[in-house]
Amino acid sequence: MTTAHGDVETPAFMPVGTQGAVKGVTHRDLESIGAQILLSNTYHLYLRPGDELIARRGGLHRFIGWSKPILTDSGGYQVFSLSSRRKITEEGAQFQSHLDGSPHLLTPEKAADIQANLGSDIAMVLDECLAHPADAASARASMERTLRWAKRGRDRYLQLRDDVGSRTVRLKPDATFDQAQFGIVQGSVFPDLREESAERTVEIGFDAYAIGGLSVGEPIDVMYDMVGRTTPKLPGGLPRYLMGAGTPEDLVEAVARGVDLFDCVLPTRNGRNGQLFTSEGRINIKNARYAEDDRPPDPACQCYTCRTCSRAYLRHLFAVGELNAGTLNTLHNLHFYLDTLRRIRESLAFGRFESFRLLFHESLSRQLQDP
Amino acid sequence: MTTAHGDVETPAFMPVGTQGAVKGVTHRDLESIGAQILLSNTYHLYLRPGDELIARRGGLHRFIGWSKPILTDSGGYQVFSLSSRRKITEEGAQFQSHLDGSPHLLTPEKAADIQANLGSDIAMVLDECLAHPADAASARASMERTLRWAKRGRDRYLQLRDDVGSRTVRLKPDATFDQAQFGIVQGSVFPDLREESAERTVEIGFDAYAIGGLSVGEPIDVMYDMVGRTTPKLPGGLPRYLMGAGTPEDLVEAVARGVDLFDCVLPTRNGRNGQLFTSEGRINIKNARYAEDDRPPDPACQCYTCRTCSRAYLRHLFAVGELNAGTLNTLHNLHFYLDTLRRIRESLAFGRFESFRLLFHESLSRQLQDP
Repeated sequence: MTTAHGDVETPAFMPVGTQGAVKGVTHRDLESIGAQILLSNTYHLYLRPGDELIARRGGLHRFIGWSKPILTDSGGYQVFSLSSRRKITEEGAQFQSHLDGSPHLLTPEKAADIQANLGSDIAMVLDECLAHPADAASARASMERTLRWAKRGRDRYLQLRDDVGSRTVRLKPDATFDQAQFGIVQGSVFPDLREESAERTVEIGFDAYAIGGLSVGEPIDVMYDMVGRTTPKLPGGLPRYLMGAGTPEDLVEAVARGVDLFDCVLPTRNGRNGQLFTSEGRINIKNARYAEDDRPPDPACQCYTCRTCSRAYLRHLFAVGELNAGTLNTLHNLHFYLDTLRRIRESLAFGRFESFRLLFHESLSRQLQDP
Repeated sequence: MTTAHGDVETPAFMPVGTQGAVKGVTHRDLESIGAQILLSNTYHLYLRPGDELIARRGGLHRFIGWSKPILTDSGGYQVFSLSSRRKITEEGAQFQSHLDGSPHLLTPEKAADIQANLGSDIAMVLDECLAHPADAASARASMERTLRWAKRGRDRYLQLRDDVGSRTVRLKPDATFDQAQFGIVQGSVFPDLREESAERTVEIGFDAYAIGGLSVGEPIDVMYDMVGRTTPKLPGGLPRYLMGAGTPEDLVEAVARGVDLFDCVLPTRNGRNGQLFTSEGRINIKNARYAEDDRPPDPACQCYTCRTCSRAYLRHLFAVGELNAGTLNTLHNLHFYLDTLRRIRESLAFGRFESFRLLFHESLSRQLQDP
């Protein structure tokens, strides 16, 4: 995948840097574990420090000091999950900030404008995020609205691209507009809606496509099924992005169904909470059983944490509430995710993905999970 | 200064790793900014995870994965500043843990035992930490007790050194005991007591000597005066350690008076609170004036933070409560301290310390301090 800030080898995992930073991990450490692209959240950056302030700083890359690609979401998901008193109308999403209660309106046009100010390499179109479970009628109505919003979001994007001077805030007067915009397939857990949403979103015409509204509580096999029914409807030559998923096994299964791009807070959030993903299963480092365990978190791992820290030390740091616990755990988890994707890419390059997938699941089935 | 885990170029500053980690900064980052030796707190490690657990792990170096020198304090200062219901008797300091209220007794012998279990390169003898201000009679009584405790602490240390098998817990049955023990000069702000304390502590005979009980609220010129009166009474060939000081200017002034070793929480604690030490003065990064300031925190600094972050970005990270704010600010502050010591060592090597000192203070006098 080629972006304005360089190439991304796919399939790829994007660490989540919600507010312009991956919690507890510096950019230097992210690069050292092979992060190729970051995801950042439009909702958070719009509220603080504000997209116009970031535009005046020269855009998100310059503001946060990250020179590789950045993808920004549309802000919609956080409006649905974080804000209070949200109200969805045809115009857009009215909401109150979770910080100070201030009123805001996020429209498809506004989502495009904000992301243009941020100057991310990949912008996401605003979609409606339907709660799970939803009945077929609600799912169709939401899908139809998402399609109407997609058209409006695309139109605004094209206007911004073709008439750079029309933007309220410009990074530089002579700047070229080198952002790509991805459309989003919705349709809840209904195969026919998913297929229709894919076809009609492709008809609008985006630079690439994402699958949204999954990994929101539906059974795992339903998620896999929805992914498997959607990807064949998306153009073969363009990246496909499964939003917000998932566990390492979800990633392997989604790749098997044709997905190229992932983001998820699991490695970062769980790391801060003391859960480590390892080749031997998931470890809750706070468990007393690790108090005198001199082994590294994952004996098969080559990350900085595993090279230099014992489970006993990590357990101590977590138990006493040291900031470094979050840093070291997150660094390991992100390495585990990025390394899993690296192994997937290798297996694909050598035509051995199916045997990799088999071995991966066999290994999982032998694993014990900490309570 | 030579220790069991390598040499330390003096004068040197020791970052404070209270619980076996410098808050927010990994060992790797500490080494990258030239940290030569860490200080860790016996009181905290004794309570969690326990000195015997650390001994079973092979000592503090192996437990925390730090291969350079470590100095541990005696635990006394934290007993006085953190614990509740403390009661000082001739035997030692009775106290309740600040964590769970459990009762403990810290004696000079116990302080030596705990530090032997930790296996630090430098152990500190237990002293009585007198609050400031104190009258002359209290200061003398406290100094006399500190001298009696020093003798007991030294005797226990010698017993541990000469009869390794006598220890309750041993790292390895055949280990040699390669810890040094420093005595501590007390005497509050009374010159005659300081001089007497120095002479009589030297009579007991330690591997080197520290100056305690300063930087506890006394006027700055009184602190400088006490240091200046104490160092001439200490053996010229041995390192002199000024405990718990101080600001960068304190370090320069203490070096001018013959001090070789420092520790202080200012760079780490203030960093987490958003205060940055720079060559242009102290910056409170949370101030709104930095919201759109694209300059690095310190234009003269070569640390990772200054090479990659603007004041605007650091202000944003601090304002939204990102973990990385603490990491990046602390990394810069520690670099500033370590770099100041590096420049002091250079100026000493070239016989130019006095001109360095003059320029340092001239530069300070022109600086603005953020509110």
